[in-house]
Parts: sequence; structure tokens; C-alpha cells
Amino acid sequence: MPKLLILSNDANEYRDLIEKENFPNLEFALEPTTDCDIVLGAPNLIRAALDALPNLKWAQSTWAGVEPLLDISLRRDYILTNARGVFGGLMSEFVFGHLLFHEKQIGFHQQAQKEKRWAHADIGMLRGKTIGLLGVGSIGAHLAQTAKFFGMTVCGYTRASETSEHVDAYYHGDQLLEFVRGLDYLVCILPRTQDTNKIVDANLLKALPPRAIFVNVGRGNAVDESALVDALTQKKIAAAVLDVFEKEPLPEDHPFWTTPNLRMTFHTSALSYPADIAKVFIENYLLYVEGKPLKYRVDFARGY
Amino acid sequence: MPKLLILSNDANEYRDLIEKENFPNLEFALEPTTDCDIVLGAPNLIRAALDALPNLKWAQSTWAGVEPLLDISLRRDYILTNARGVFGGLMSEFVFGHLLFHEKQIGFHQQAQKEKRWAHADIGMLRGKTIGLLGVGSIGAHLAQTAKFFGMTVCGYTRASETSEHVDAYYHGDQLLEFVRGLDYLVCILPRTQDTNKIVDANLLKALPPRAIFVNVGRGNAVDESALVDALTQKKIAAAVLDVFEKEPLPEDHPFWTTPNLRMTFHTSALSYPADIAKVFIENYLLYVEGKPLKYRVDFARGY
Repeated sequence: MPKLLILSNDANEYRDLIEKENFPNLEFALEPTTDCDIVLGAPNLIRAALDALPNLKWAQSTWAGVEPLLDISLRRDYILTNARGVFGGLMSEFVFGHLLFHEKQIGFHQQAQKEKRWAHADIGMLRGKTIGLLGVGSIGAHLAQTAKFFGMTVCGYTRASETSEHVDAYYHGDQLLEFVRGLDYLVCILPRTQDTNKIVDANLLKALPPRAIFVNVGRGNAVDESALVDALTQKKIAAAVLDVFEKEPLPEDHPFWTTPNLRMTFHTSALSYPADIAKVFIENYLLYVEGKPLKYRVDFARGY
Repeated sequence: MPKLLILSNDANEYRDLIEKENFPNLEFALEPTTDCDIVLGAPNLIRAALDALPNLKWAQSTWAGVEPLLDISLRRDYILTNARGVFGGLMSEFVFGHLLFHEKQIGFHQQAQKEKRWAHADIGMLRGKTIGLLGVGSIGAHLAQTAKFFGMTVCGYTRASETSEHVDAYYHGDQLLEFVRGLDYLVCILPRTQDTNKIVDANLLKALPPRAIFVNVGRGNAVDESALVDALTQKKIAAAVLDVFEKEPLPEDHPFWTTPNLRMTFHTSALSYPADIAKVFIENYLLYVEGKPLKYRVDFARGY
């Protein structure tokens, strides 16, 4: 009999959503036990419970990023699947909301209103602009689709795959600087792996046009944070929007707090909503009980 | 021989764009003359020139709104066409940019960053929300399409037509209050006519849910401005975004400047770009020289 442990702040909501499916054999565990074979939860909570789950066969992460479970000192004798295919829409809302904030000069209008000035800003538009996607997985593919909807040109940089039909031009390997030249917006959606460390460095930022806006909704390790402070301070790029950081929460004395033309949000660009994640779990659970390969499996070595 | 007068601040740009077409018979006039049969320009400038253009046959407006030419004291013995089909994309960028500013709590994050606080806001999303379009012409149809792209439900209120396939439910006539009940966002795209005066009044605002955001990108006459100040002050609705006003520029002593939860822009939600408008003119010019019916013809009596 499959036995599921849920490790999440939203555990009750997850249980309600899964119970609605009336799976005939599924039992729920209230704490880690030796006979649990399935766990659904946040990677940091799963990590803490790993030792108490000797018969774990499958862990479904409620997050996209599974870094806490990738430590090489941890066991890898179970199938790890992450949340995929559910964040694209939310990420599109976040990224294009912030790009439109810039283009429509909403900040300028807030200030003019405060000063009771009927004032005309130099308003821009998304249409006709070029966006570069650093990483084109399921989130990148959704951003590409949204960009095409708004009449933009889409460039994509990936390790190898060229899976989205909405990307106009793909770049790989040593074409990174070629990829960023001419971009209006650069959006990083990379996962945290050894290969993505500081990929956005001084050289890359120098290759971007001065009008460019950089957005990071991937992981903080992808950015050389000092180089980004320099690029913004010296106006080598126009602006940046960061939702993720090398260290979170961002330390109080970090220069980002006062860097010009930098806007920050606090790792909330795409939250995990139980209604979305439960669907991923249920889809995989049906495959699991039939002994079929699960979807969204994480390659421990690759890191995503 | 057709003879064209261009009356616009962008006259040189328009002339360059039209000359590129190499129309064999078209002549350009540099000022109003008795032999001009065509004028392309801003409605207020055309109005001022009407008396000096006795042989005017066709006026192509560079704006969507043609109010200056609708005064019943003015001649109506020519064909008036307006700019249509070119503002939808820009309006979508404006409206959804402002809705995302609210949902993504960009203002909250600006403030938190200023205070160096790593703080989590109650972030919302467009997906699953219901938008109501007050007026579903070519701009409304584009907004409907964008709303569907973001996974929203679309309601439309029109005089009679039901032309957009992206509207889930249409309302007409006395169904106005029924139309607004349950909306998350109400967007007014109505032209200025006698029928649209103060259609957004205290009753309509009271029928909106308290969570609703009202956006006006149509014309200022559609809103009872005192009623809107009351609704925002008394939190009967959550917020409003206004790009148009009964009187523009907005008078210095207008209560809107300090009304809570009101954000204003200054009639710039969709500017007329010569490259867009020239295409409309060229399309119509080809019909004109062949004696065919022109597109986007304004009905002087109806007002749009």
C-alpha cells in the first residue's frame, strides 16, 4: 500500500486536494515512518526527514529548485521529481509586469502625480523589442510565448536543447556574448548548478547595450553581484530587477539595497500554489502506482 | 489629381512615410488650398483648417477620438475616417502593465527596498481573474485577447455588437449593473458620445466588488468624477487607474491629485506613432483612388 507523508506549511491544503481524488489504496502518514514510500514537500523539509524514511522510493518537491537535496553527502537512492510546468504563467506575469513598469514609466507618473504635475514621460513599448532568455526550460518557453504575444523578438541561450517554437534564434556554448549583444531585456531563468555560477559577470554585463534591463528570476548564484552593482552604478546597463540572490534573505549591509536603478522583490516571483502543485503530484502518483516512469524527474548529477 | 495636406506635429515623418510608396499621382500641399481633396492630421488641426478646404472629400484622423470634428455647427460634407486597429497592442501593454503593478505589489516592494526590509507581500495574479470591458471595439477586442492569454475570464458590455471571439459573456442595454457585479477589473474604452456621459456613476461603482480595480483609457466624460472620488475614499473599490479626464490637463485644484488608491497617467496610454497611422492612411488611400468605400469611417451622428 502506498503511504504518503506531506511535509509543507500547506500540508492540510495538500491533503484535502489529494483526498478529493479518492485513491483507493493511498494511506497518509502524519510523521516520517519506516513504511513511508512517498513524500510530497518542500526540499528543505524533505532533507531533514531523509534519515527517518528508509523505504522512501519517490519524493515530489513542491518547489522548482531542489538544491537542499542535491548535496553529494545525501542519499540518492530514490526518485526525485520537482514542480515543473506550473510556474510559467506566474513568471510571465512577474517578468512582463516589471518590464511594463519600466516601459510605461509608472514610477515617473507616481512622482508627477505626487507633485501635481501634468507631465509627459518618454513612454516605451514591448512591441518590437528583443528579449534574451538565459535558459529555455518550461518557464523560459512560457516567457518566449508571452514575448511573441507582445510582438517581440526572442533569443534563447541553452546548453543544447531547442524545444520552444517561440524562440526566434538559439545560442549555445561559447556564443554567450554574441547572444546578449543587441538585447533590450535579458532574463535569467537558470537553475543553481556548478555550470551556472556567475554566468552573468562583468564581461556579459559589458556586452549588453546601455539600454538593457536585466531580470533574474532563476537563482542568485548565476550573478556576479559586485559586477552587477558596478554595471548599474556606472550605467553600463539601464536597470535590473532581482527576485533571487546569492544569500537570502539579502544581508542588511548588502550594496544592492542602495544600488541605483535596481528593483528587488524577495524570492516571490512564482510562488508554489497547492492547487497547482497537487495536480503535478496527482499526475505523477497515477504513473507511480502503475510502475511507469515519472514526469519532471531530477537528474541528481546535473542538478535539475 | 489627389492633393494631400498633412496637419500634424509629425508632418515631415508622415510625408517621408507616404512618399516611400511612390504613388504616381499624389501631390502634397504645404498649406490649406482650394484644390486639396484629402487631409491627414490631428482632429483639432483639421477643424481649424476646415473653412480653407472647400473641396475636402476625405479627412483621415491620426487619432482614434475625433471629438473636435463632431460639433454639430461644423460641416459634415466629407468622409471622416479615424485611426483604428493600431492602438490595441499599446492599450494592452498599458492596461496589463498597470494591473500587474497592482497584482505584483510593485509599490509595496519599492517601499520595502527603501526601508531595507526583506518583506513578503500578498502577491496576486491575473490568472483566474475576471475582467469587464466597457466597450468592445478594436481596442476592446485586443484587451480581450490579452486577458485570455493570461488565463482570465472576459465579460464585455457593448451597445449591440458581439464581434470578439475572446469575450466569454456579452451584456447589453440595461444589463450594465449585472455586467459589473463580480468583476475583478473594469476597463472603460468608450468613445466620447452623448450616450457615454457618466456611464460610470455612483450606482455602477457601488455594484463593483470592493476588490475591483477601475481603469479608464477611453474618454473622461464616461466617469462621474465626484462619484469616483467618493468610491475610492470610502474604499467601495480597491483602486483606479485613469489616463483620461473630463477636463485635460487636469486642473490643479482637482481632488483626483490626492485621492487615495488612484493612479494617474496623462492621456498617453496609446500614443499615435506615425509608422502605425501612415499604414492606415496608405490602406485607405488605395481604396480612395479606386473609388471604393474607405475603412474606419466615422458616423458623425453616432460619434465614432
